Amino acid sequence: MNKNHSKEYYMKQALKQAKKAYSIDEVPIGAVIVKNNEIISRAYNQREKNHKSTAHSEIIAIEKACKKLNSWRLNNCEIYVTVEPCPMCAGAILNSRMKKVYFGALDEKSGAVVSNLHMLDLDKTFCNHKVEYESELLKDECQDLLKDFFSKLRERNK
Amino acid sequence: MNKNHSKEYYMKQALKQAKKAYSIDEVPIGAVIVKNNEIISRAYNQREKNHKSTAHSEIIAIEKACKKLNSWRLNNCEIYVTVEPCPMCAGAILNSRMKKVYFGALDEKSGAVVSNLHMLDLDKTFCNHKVEYESELLKDECQDLLKDFFSKLRERNK
Repeated sequence: MNKNHSKEYYMKQALKQAKKAYSIDEVPIGAVIVKNNEIISRAYNQREKNHKSTAHSEIIAIEKACKKLNSWRLNNCEIYVTVEPCPMCAGAILNSRMKKVYFGALDEKSGAVVSNLHMLDLDKTFCNHKVEYESELLKDECQDLLKDFFSKLRERNK
Repeated sequence: MNKNHSKEYYMKQALKQAKKAYSIDEVPIGAVIVKNNEIISRAYNQREKNHKSTAHSEIIAIEKACKKLNSWRLNNCEIYVTVEPCPMCAGAILNSRMKKVYFGALDEKSGAVVSNLHMLDLDKTFCNHKVEYESELLKDECQDLLKDFFSKLRERNK
């Protein structure tokens, strides 16, 4: 049986992924997917590096998890992501029939869970599924990483 | 210079893709992406075959187009899709900074453009971008293909 880690432990693993994105000059966002207390996939944002609008950490993590489980249904899986998912990613989480999403920093502009749209509060007849969520888990660490990234970017572009 | 085809021509190309999905027992949805009157990518739904929740026709078409243009920005690109995009795909279209989406059949349950959420009517500060749309282009052909697919599926499952 897998060890039962705390939710903070898993978010720290997502933060490790976000730092990998940071190290290659990508907006530092990371995600891990957990099933039965086991991390089954890890990913970080690679939009610039991969020249791919869909290469958000959540999408890459979901695709890796689908491959691992050989199924498009990620039943009983939980995703930990350092920033509030955008509409595309919240939609992918719904489409994957995941159980729950935990996220850190809010994204007031494009966040689709609590900041705008409230996509996971919709009636479960929409997309045939309802996903639980918990917001602002290790919010400060997640937010500080982003702030640091954007402040260095502004410095560099001066 | 590329020939200036009608919008119906491009939707028929998307329908051809949808028929490819039909022929491998996938829900028949197809998409093409057009830039400067040229079709730069074609794709069909492969969720079941690829065991991948993200393998909707729009996502695959977007990823192919990004690869072709070597950019995550699909500026001035238009996507033709046989069915109203779900939230994930509408989000991906926004994230790709596409110019316009044309779609055929409505999806009253999961459609995120006119049936629910109205994701493309949001203020352009959301996701930094505004995408135009035209609904119900060759609606009957697109809808009939879906109806035929689901009626045969019900027959088979009796």
